[in-house]
Amino acid sequence: MIEDKNQARTSLSELGEFGLINHLTQNFNIQHKSTIKGVGDDAAVIEMTDKQILVTTDMLIEGVHFDLSYMPLKHLGYKAVMVNLSDVYAMNGNATQIAVSIAVSNRFSLEAMEELYEGIHLACKGYNIDLIGGDTTSSTTGLLISITAIGEIKKEDVVYRNSAKPTDLLVVSGDLGAAYLGLQVLEREKQVFQVNPDSQPDLTNYSYLIERQLKPEARKDIVKLLKDLEVKPTSMIDISDGLSSEILHICTQSKVGCNLYEDKIPLDPQVISTCEEFNLNSTTIALSGGEDYELLFTISQEDFLKIKANPHLSIIGHITDESEGVNLVTRANQQIKLTAQGWNALQKE
Amino acid sequence: MIEDKNQARTSLSELGEFGLINHLTQNFNIQHKSTIKGVGDDAAVIEMTDKQILVTTDMLIEGVHFDLSYMPLKHLGYKAVMVNLSDVYAMNGNATQIAVSIAVSNRFSLEAMEELYEGIHLACKGYNIDLIGGDTTSSTTGLLISITAIGEIKKEDVVYRNSAKPTDLLVVSGDLGAAYLGLQVLEREKQVFQVNPDSQPDLTNYSYLIERQLKPEARKDIVKLLKDLEVKPTSMIDISDGLSSEILHICTQSKVGCNLYEDKIPLDPQVISTCEEFNLNSTTIALSGGEDYELLFTISQEDFLKIKANPHLSIIGHITDESEGVNLVTRANQQIKLTAQGWNALQKE
Repeated sequence: MIEDKNQARTSLSELGEFGLINHLTQNFNIQHKSTIKGVGDDAAVIEMTDKQILVTTDMLIEGVHFDLSYMPLKHLGYKAVMVNLSDVYAMNGNATQIAVSIAVSNRFSLEAMEELYEGIHLACKGYNIDLIGGDTTSSTTGLLISITAIGEIKKEDVVYRNSAKPTDLLVVSGDLGAAYLGLQVLEREKQVFQVNPDSQPDLTNYSYLIERQLKPEARKDIVKLLKDLEVKPTSMIDISDGLSSEILHICTQSKVGCNLYEDKIPLDPQVISTCEEFNLNSTTIALSGGEDYELLFTISQEDFLKIKANPHLSIIGHITDESEGVNLVTRANQQIKLTAQGWNALQKE
Repeated sequence: MIEDKNQARTSLSELGEFGLINHLTQNFNIQHKSTIKGVGDDAAVIEMTDKQILVTTDMLIEGVHFDLSYMPLKHLGYKAVMVNLSDVYAMNGNATQIAVSIAVSNRFSLEAMEELYEGIHLACKGYNIDLIGGDTTSSTTGLLISITAIGEIKKEDVVYRNSAKPTDLLVVSGDLGAAYLGLQVLEREKQVFQVNPDSQPDLTNYSYLIERQLKPEARKDIVKLLKDLEVKPTSMIDISDGLSSEILHICTQSKVGCNLYEDKIPLDPQVISTCEEFNLNSTTIALSGGEDYELLFTISQEDFLKIKANPHLSIIGHITDESEGVNLVTRANQQIKLTAQGWNALQKE
């Protein structure tokens, strides 16, 4: 959290827009045969023979989606890519390219931009993604990243949100709520630091939570796992806004109901202990926390045996008729109507 | 320029992110067979059989790229789309889809967003574009639009920047410098208005300039014209930053030189008269003004007869060996080395 005030600082205007783009993108290599032309022309050129193309876009804004006092720029770059790739994987697709647009105010130096792009580069390398273009401009305040991700998928493999069927099982990858709690821990440490800049926080007990907030991973591995298991989900979505919001998306679009079982929601031990410490209800956090970037999907009952013992997947409920509504079945076996209290991008904090 | 203080004002947070997206996109119809799935899932799905895909992205930021005191929101929405389509046409492609991401602060009402989307809708209708997705979020200050445009093109039709050859002719569509002068006129009127809010400006003499600034059109018609004339440019770029900057892009990437003839640069009569009034050099404005969104391209000498008499096209120079450099040949027949003084997105104003 301690800022090095003596770091090298090259002004961005020394390079100009095109110089900057060239400098920042010079280490990015093109990996995909489908990338015919990347950075450097009016538009990128892509060729996807016999495949459908997935396109998704997400924007991260300083002061709204991230706070640079505890989000290192390298992590921010990495996370901004993950947020977008996650949407491609949620279609059951293979993410292949990204275009990155960045707006920066003059308080950011070249060195800061290099750090940001280091994170983007790491994400591209780790997930086999080609950087194919973007836009770099100045902003009046703060930093803003808008990424468009492109993916490829065979027509018959696409999984939408609107095709869940009654009796399908509801499945989620990984565990939930950790990213939100990581944010709470970081916010608390920020306040401690403001009061006492010499404090040395011991964050060992929160390491998983903080990693989930600062360095989330998009679940490319789950898409592969499902392929290996020969399971094609009947519907799928990624968890960016919180479990309840995403379940409601699937149910509304599929015109079905759902029973979600509270005791089946996967929680990391750090989530449970930190919820106790913060006096929060862990189910509420899992339902409404958001930023988990796990995959939520439905499968046909007949695929049950294929996924049942898998440590990466939890069966958390089942799809019902629309008339039965969308419910949480609590540990006390009470049925509560599920409402979306996920993070609303337009709500005032 | 007079703001109606009594307009209806519905807060955006009343609708929430998904309600807002649904509301704003409800009038958009899908026109292209290639759009398999538009708004409403994790990613859009596109299918382009036997075509290559063009992807380009551009961001417009309040206070950097536009000033809402003279840029009506409807025009802004229209222009934001044009800026992106222009890049697709500059590849010789057919623009087919856009994804629109918007960040707004709470000073914007639902009615303001409706106006913005009206402009986007108008652009989509006029240019036959499907809106396939995007992201809507809050910003800490101001309005920001990031658009990604998708286009399709046959492999053999793609025109890059890096393939101009010595002896090729340099051609530009339309005329240059008007958009920049339109901005100067609007800036002047804004200052007059601030001093005297009752002043009724007579902008008749500047109508073309203002239209070019507030409602530019991407040159889809030129792509079609060239196809009809059976001319495939040897290189092409759109003029967003100013003629000299774009010529330098073509020459640098193609490893060629160029002679540009000052007396051939197409100027509208309003550009000439307004340059006199503002005591500006019209050549400088055409070279460095930017935002014209015309197409600049090179053609083989043998295509000369096909385009020579066309009122939409001006031959303004020819490509030379790299060793001869990139030069402006003035009306006095002097040769001046061309330097890019176009709008630098990262320069301090």
